[in-house]
Amino acid sequence: MGIEGLDPVLHERVRLGILVLLVQAGELDFQTLKRALGVTDGNLAQHLRVLEEAGVIHARKGFQGRRPRTVYQLTESGRRRFEQYLEALRGLLGPLSGGQP
Amino acid sequence: MGIEGLDPVLHERVRLGILVLLVQAGELDFQTLKRALGVTDGNLAQHLRVLEEAGVIHARKGFQGRRPRTVYQLTESGRRRFEQYLEALRGLLGPLSGGQP
Repeated sequence: MGIEGLDPVLHERVRLGILVLLVQAGELDFQTLKRALGVTDGNLAQHLRVLEEAGVIHARKGFQGRRPRTVYQLTESGRRRFEQYLEALRGLLGPLSGGQP
Repeated sequence: MGIEGLDPVLHERVRLGILVLLVQAGELDFQTLKRALGVTDGNLAQHLRVLEEAGVIHARKGFQGRRPRTVYQLTESGRRRFEQYLEALRGLLGPLSGGQP
């Protein structure tokens, strides 16, 4: 039973959403993530911090014109870790798809 | 961005494991779930209670010989709710599968 493969750092709903968006877009800033996910500043900041402290994402501080702007992207190890998570999830749910319950 | 479709009652790791096992087996008792998931009594009991209070699973008390034995199974609405969750999850992750990151 493969729930131990469901990395708890990545499995959380908002964090899973962040990862899907970053894989698709390459990099995104805080406001874009916030709008896409429909979460509060505090909630998003908390989940970004968990992912950053785990080495899954990397924050790059820069400017857009004169305004500070931080963009987030997956690290290489974060990308591998997310792929392993997806594989574990497919392994867990695979037997269900299309089969009789 | 479909994280709002990821029903938090079902998305939690241990609860997701319980649901996958119950879909596959039809019904299971506490000890079998515990062994299959590798969790403690207290942890499993807590998650079963959340699922039962949400109407996702149903506990049926009976006996095995003279020993009391409770078996758990999905309710009809729980089964539908789980199918909706799986659909939301596939919708969220589908764009990733096989594509370039």
